[in-house]
Amino acid sequence: MRTLKVALLGCGVVGTEVARIMTTHAADLAARIGAPVELAGVAVRRANRPRPGIPDELVTTDAAELVKRDDIDVVIEVIGGIEPARSLILTAFEQGASVVSANKALLAADGSALHAAAAAAGADLYYEAAVAGAIPLIRPLRESLAGDKVNRVLGIVNGTTNFILDKMDSTGAGYSEALEEATALGYAEADPTADVEGFDAAAKAAILAGIAFHTRVTAADVFREGLTEVTAADIASAKAMNSVVKLLAICERSADGSRVTARVHPAMIPRTHPLANVRGAYNAVFVESEAAGQLMFYGPGAGGAPTASAVLGDLVAVCRNKLAGSTGPGESAYAQLTVSPMDGVVTRYHVSLDVADKAGVLAQVATVFAEHGVSIDTVRQQGREGDASLVVVTHRATDAALSATVSALRSLDNVRGVASIMRVEGE
Amino acid sequence: MRTLKVALLGCGVVGTEVARIMTTHAADLAARIGAPVELAGVAVRRANRPRPGIPDELVTTDAAELVKRDDIDVVIEVIGGIEPARSLILTAFEQGASVVSANKALLAADGSALHAAAAAAGADLYYEAAVAGAIPLIRPLRESLAGDKVNRVLGIVNGTTNFILDKMDSTGAGYSEALEEATALGYAEADPTADVEGFDAAAKAAILAGIAFHTRVTAADVFREGLTEVTAADIASAKAMNSVVKLLAICERSADGSRVTARVHPAMIPRTHPLANVRGAYNAVFVESEAAGQLMFYGPGAGGAPTASAVLGDLVAVCRNKLAGSTGPGESAYAQLTVSPMDGVVTRYHVSLDVADKAGVLAQVATVFAEHGVSIDTVRQQGREGDASLVVVTHRATDAALSATVSALRSLDNVRGVASIMRVEGE
Ligand SMILES: NC(=O)c1ccc[n+]([C@@H]2O[C@H](COP(=O)([O-])OP(=O)(O)OC[C@H]3O[C@@H](n4cnc5c(N)ncnc54)[C@H](OP(=O)(O)O)[C@@H]3O)[C@@H](O)[C@H]2O)c1
Ligand SMILES: NC(=O)c1ccc[n+]([C@@H]2O[C@H](COP(=O)([O-])OP(=O)(O)OC[C@H]3O[C@@H](n4cnc5c(N)ncnc54)[C@H](OP(=O)(O)O)[C@@H]3O)[C@@H](O)[C@H]2O)c1
Repeated sequence: MRTLKVALLGCGVVGTEVARIMTTHAADLAARIGAPVELAGVAVRRANRPRPGIPDELVTTDAAELVKRDDIDVVIEVIGGIEPARSLILTAFEQGASVVSANKALLAADGSALHAAAAAAGADLYYEAAVAGAIPLIRPLRESLAGDKVNRVLGIVNGTTNFILDKMDSTGAGYSEALEEATALGYAEADPTADVEGFDAAAKAAILAGIAFHTRVTAADVFREGLTEVTAADIASAKAMNSVVKLLAICERSADGSRVTARVHPAMIPRTHPLANVRGAYNAVFVESEAAGQLMFYGPGAGGAPTASAVLGDLVAVCRNKLAGSTGPGESAYAQLTVSPMDGVVTRYHVSLDVADKAGVLAQVATVFAEHGVSIDTVRQQGREGDASLVVVTHRATDAALSATVSALRSLDNVRGVASIMRVEGE
Repeated sequence: MRTLKVALLGCGVVGTEVARIMTTHAADLAARIGAPVELAGVAVRRANRPRPGIPDELVTTDAAELVKRDDIDVVIEVIGGIEPARSLILTAFEQGASVVSANKALLAADGSALHAAAAAAGADLYYEAAVAGAIPLIRPLRESLAGDKVNRVLGIVNGTTNFILDKMDSTGAGYSEALEEATALGYAEADPTADVEGFDAAAKAAILAGIAFHTRVTAADVFREGLTEVTAADIASAKAMNSVVKLLAICERSADGSRVTARVHPAMIPRTHPLANVRGAYNAVFVESEAAGQLMFYGPGAGGAPTASAVLGDLVAVCRNKLAGSTGPGESAYAQLTVSPMDGVVTRYHVSLDVADKAGVLAQVATVFAEHGVSIDTVRQQGREGDASLVVVTHRATDAALSATVSALRSLDNVRGVASIMRVEGE
């Protein structure tokens, strides 16, 4: 029984846990795979850091050399980012190794090229850890629902922003204050851009949409709005509607089935919606499909050990495939649906306007909505010496219709400003 | 590109939907599998029923002959029950066909023999639909968590009993009345034994425990208590504690890791627990593992289309494996942990006693609990002319200690009867 050799690229938050579990649970992994697996090398950036539990002789700063070794069966890439991860993975495939990655940024940017390289090499590319940490989501979508037609994927896939929004909701804090706390507690990185601007969630949305709809979707196809513009007033306004604000990733098939959209943006959802109760760093994703109906998956969306659990599940799978001389399902993009821009997306909107406190303003505003075919569900008006705020919640309308409405509103003399526009979901 | 031929055994609630989706979604299935799949025969019991959408010439009442055909690649067994399902599946393997089944009863009774036959034949045995309908659970446990150590699986896996308990909770109805309504609405079968006595849930618990703990577990290993003894008073008592009663399936690893238990019984859980909000025919299962932490899976636990979704996901997988000349993961029972009886299980209890309304009774009762090492959390006493009821909620204790306590209580003169004992979970 030959030993399978694993090269670990990256030994940070996730990699350290991968190495630890590979060592402490070696016997179980061997039994489940059908052969022992051995850590053959660990590539890092900084040579002289302590790496508890990892034999010094395994550590190298030359990742390129490690993946070029011809005795490596599986490469686990947990470095992150586009380069050198991309080149290292391509080299791994050239060497015939299979790859397990947690790298959502890379997969969302260039997944198809990687899949093609894997297929050409007869190797596997697995990446359960790239979306929603420990939560099995890629495999259920790619395999369990392979006989069904997925119509919608909707969820909270970024723990950092969820933590920040939670804080704003529970304390009334503004965005900056909540971000500061998240950073202090280690929930946000020093440079939080990828999280707070929605890049991380958009990458995950692209990966999910691609698998769910059997269509190539990249991060560039995903409409993206972060939460840096969400104000304490928005949160308060959501509260007044018995709603909360969450950063959602939404992948949808159009009603006629021919087009799909993927988007990431803050949205108000009713406090009674199951996603409203997803707290802190947890993630939860709903999947709606034709036959199965509505499924929900919930769990830790990040963290070293949870993410390592997903990586190791993939490791077992690709090792089994190696031993069997087979590969798992590769990219499935046969449906080639059109990925539509945001214009055609239909949803509800919460529009907050600063208006002159005069008779007839509401009628004027209502007329603009009507002229653009956007029907109003509720209006709340609050007077404040001379000017007032008007909160309009619409019925379902296209993004294009709403945008046109907002442009027209801005040109009204009595509208001093559009304080915020937020989508309303989950009803 | 050869066409894969599928024999469908059974065309009832589930089979009809399987056939329908195979027909209406043939092109998608072909694209995902990499080859067309064709319904080659449909075995039923009654010859002359209308089978809309299924060509007459495919229908046969001779299932045995159908599975003996040498051109069948995959057999889908959705007849249910032990025989003839078991023999038909074994014949299918002898013929080299792979099998997809939704048959929890059979898999829990004799899964190992079926797995062995599949392995001997180099064929696949998949059964995602056997547990929790459409919810991907077998695959996540067997594959996504293959690199992790599962410690606990806890969930609601039977929709019929969940519907009945829901009714009792919302209307105050007794068990018989709620069952009648469930039957009238089609949520319970004419003979509800398998559901209400917990056999169905116990079969699922056996399957889940086997996969989660890499150990052979059969239905006979599962402690089973149905809900026929649950009274309106129990439900009311749960309400008073801000709890609800649910029929839970619980599979646990002992603290030292060497033993496992599987059990199905009604239990009180706090109304704030996520499982408390699982309504009607929905199922939800928590999986706790060492690295991943706590995951939850939620969705429709039964029904023709949802169950067919799971069957078809398996169909795609076994067809892909066939084309690749490989097989998916088979039985994994290497851990061979001891499956312990109920005695050692540690949980909390809600004990309701009818006692004489005399001074000193509470002290007497409390002494009995203390003598058996069962520590009391709360006591509620309600007087009723001459006699009274005493509701004791304990801290965590073994089943053996609780049983001994109850025996001793029964022998007290002042204890007129033990009205009910129910486990308290989810805290
Ligand atoms: N952290 C999570 O909760 C989480 C969850 C899901 C997915 N992921 C994904 O997992 C991946 C890793 O995340 P992480 O949090 O573990 O990152 P991290 O803590 O920053 O670790 C990155 C590791 O990669 C090494 N590295 C950086 N550049 C390298 C290079 N050029 N050559 C070799 N090694 C290099 C670093 O070396 P040094 O140790 O010398 O700095 C470090 O060990 C990312 O793709 C991330 O998106 C993370
Ligand atoms: N229903 C659900 O929601 C659900 C959910 C999960 C799993 N399952 C499982 O799926 C399986 C099927 O359930 P179901 O609800 O579809 O059952 P069902 O509606 O009773 O259908 C059973 C089918 O098997 C046929 N059949 C019975 N005996 C046969 C025999 N000896 N030879 C050939 N065909 C025979 C019946 O023929 P006729 O049509 O002529 O009667 C019928 O078509 C069971 O194992 C069940 O536990 C069901």
